[in-house]
Amino acid sequence: VTRPGETELIARYFAPLAAAGGLGLRDDAARVTPIPGWDLVVTVDALVESVHFLPGDPPGSIARKALGVNVSDLAAKGADPLGYVLALALPAGWTEEWLAQFSHGLEAAADDFRCPLLGGDTVRASGGLTLSVTALGQVPGGTMVQRTTAKIGDVVCVTGTIGDAALGLALRGDPDWARDLDDSQRAVLADRYLNPQPRIALAPALRRHATAAMDVSDGLAGDLAKMTAASGVSALIDGAAVPVSEAVRAAVVRVPDLIDRVLTGGDDYEILCTVPADRLETFRLEAHKAGVTLTPIGRIVEGRTPPVFKVAGRDRSYEAGSFSHF
Amino acid sequence: VTRPGETELIARYFAPLAAAGGLGLRDDAARVTPIPGWDLVVTVDALVESVHFLPGDPPGSIARKALGVNVSDLAAKGADPLGYVLALALPAGWTEEWLAQFSHGLEAAADDFRCPLLGGDTVRASGGLTLSVTALGQVPGGTMVQRTTAKIGDVVCVTGTIGDAALGLALRGDPDWARDLDDSQRAVLADRYLNPQPRIALAPALRRHATAAMDVSDGLAGDLAKMTAASGVSALIDGAAVPVSEAVRAAVVRVPDLIDRVLTGGDDYEILCTVPADRLETFRLEAHKAGVTLTPIGRIVEGRTPPVFKVAGRDRSYEAGSFSHF
Repeated sequence: VTRPGETELIARYFAPLAAAGGLGLRDDAARVTPIPGWDLVVTVDALVESVHFLPGDPPGSIARKALGVNVSDLAAKGADPLGYVLALALPAGWTEEWLAQFSHGLEAAADDFRCPLLGGDTVRASGGLTLSVTALGQVPGGTMVQRTTAKIGDVVCVTGTIGDAALGLALRGDPDWARDLDDSQRAVLADRYLNPQPRIALAPALRRHATAAMDVSDGLAGDLAKMTAASGVSALIDGAAVPVSEAVRAAVVRVPDLIDRVLTGGDDYEILCTVPADRLETFRLEAHKAGVTLTPIGRIVEGRTPPVFKVAGRDRSYEAGSFSHF
Repeated sequence: VTRPGETELIARYFAPLAAAGGLGLRDDAARVTPIPGWDLVVTVDALVESVHFLPGDPPGSIARKALGVNVSDLAAKGADPLGYVLALALPAGWTEEWLAQFSHGLEAAADDFRCPLLGGDTVRASGGLTLSVTALGQVPGGTMVQRTTAKIGDVVCVTGTIGDAALGLALRGDPDWARDLDDSQRAVLADRYLNPQPRIALAPALRRHATAAMDVSDGLAGDLAKMTAASGVSALIDGAAVPVSEAVRAAVVRVPDLIDRVLTGGDDYEILCTVPADRLETFRLEAHKAGVTLTPIGRIVEGRTPPVFKVAGRDRSYEAGSFSHF
């Protein structure tokens, strides 16, 4: 098989995706002119085959996920996307067809997320496919929403629905509970695992109203525990208020214990945030106008213990509630 | 063996390295406030075990190299370093001792290069150690030095000495020619491979005087060919003018054909640049004041052919003169 060299590969598959600041990917660096008075927000996430995605996943969805998880971090900080750079380590058996699909997926995701390619590096992997995306965003000076600043009395909110991706991944094991789901419900869950939808539309409202925020990537329970620990507070959560899709509801009705997986499973890429009670309605209205459903699920309270989830009348806390990729 | 989890690992080994904008590495993103009116310069390079470094290389030098190759790109663009993010994929057998040495090396390199840690992601590798560094730099608006803008008549210059790292790597194969080198010469060559010294001190002079620039990472001949092709020009280079260390000179005297490896070998992390003839002396003086030796080696000429190197009375051009990591 004849395969293009690095220069040709970049020219063919990645240069067409480059933003103006990417200089056609013909230079050693990209150039970005920040909006005067705005701060830059920088985040990086690496994805590794068999750790963060499965070898047979569609190339386009691997691309979308690699960019999406980073743009989700930007959104949670209240930042508007500016662009991204990609480090791509390709395993021995890569093909042009794989790369064509990957770059198409990347282009579509970058369009959807308004986050264009600025630069990259393509190398040979030692082992499986490994990607690292660094995404840049921007916020008006001083308005980046931090994780460490939740306040006692704040309302805890979450966007969208929780648990779809975790059950979407679990579907692959063909569990008993999945037999009650119809095809469209299965498709919804599987798609949420493959194609995260970062909540970039919420960023402006978030920086106006939220006291603290982070994205839900490692499970709602664990990520909330990280936020409360970092803020020196605790939280009381009403499990019944946690928003779930019809598909997840159907699965949990069949197997009640699945609620634990919903709350701890990860890959949601929703936004978890806290807001003063007197701003909740304004915030929800602005979120709604931006096309994002925002649901209050509990309160920030005094204390240093992990958040308590009231589920089916019982208090649960999830000590090891967060998935560690490590 | 008990090893720390991801959160503890970050707190122990990386948080102490974080710049103010890194927010103690306790958030999902870093915050950077650019200098008003300055442009941001962004570059990314990935390093893979057995491709870009050898499994037994000292952890501190792997760290220094990962940061150094990126800071070298910034320097070549005339940019002052701002900070970097690191994606680190650790192989199955990592130890705390390895990580302690790695983070110490990273800290020392970041201090030397004035490029502090802003954030990162640590994951499990599929295969060998894989690192990706995205470095941010800044230049006064509009002054980033590009690769594509060399002009006919410009003088071609290079910093420092060329070929040390390539012969330093070759030393490991215990070649015949190395027997004539003394211990300090061997040490100089080996060190240049392990510990690149990005020419950040040259950045201000570079943006004042250079018409085009890039760093020499894949071999002088190949990188110059990239620059001339991207600029739509060619170049005539005097091989005898290419600056080399005493150690390289000794090796080439013993085995004249080593000159090809010197000119194509890579890992130099010097800066290749072009400057109008009437600015050469001012540029060299400013470089000298910054502690960087700048040597003119030839001229940019009309044409579309690869650069010609006059070596020992013969014209050579290096078609496949650039090392491809791919």
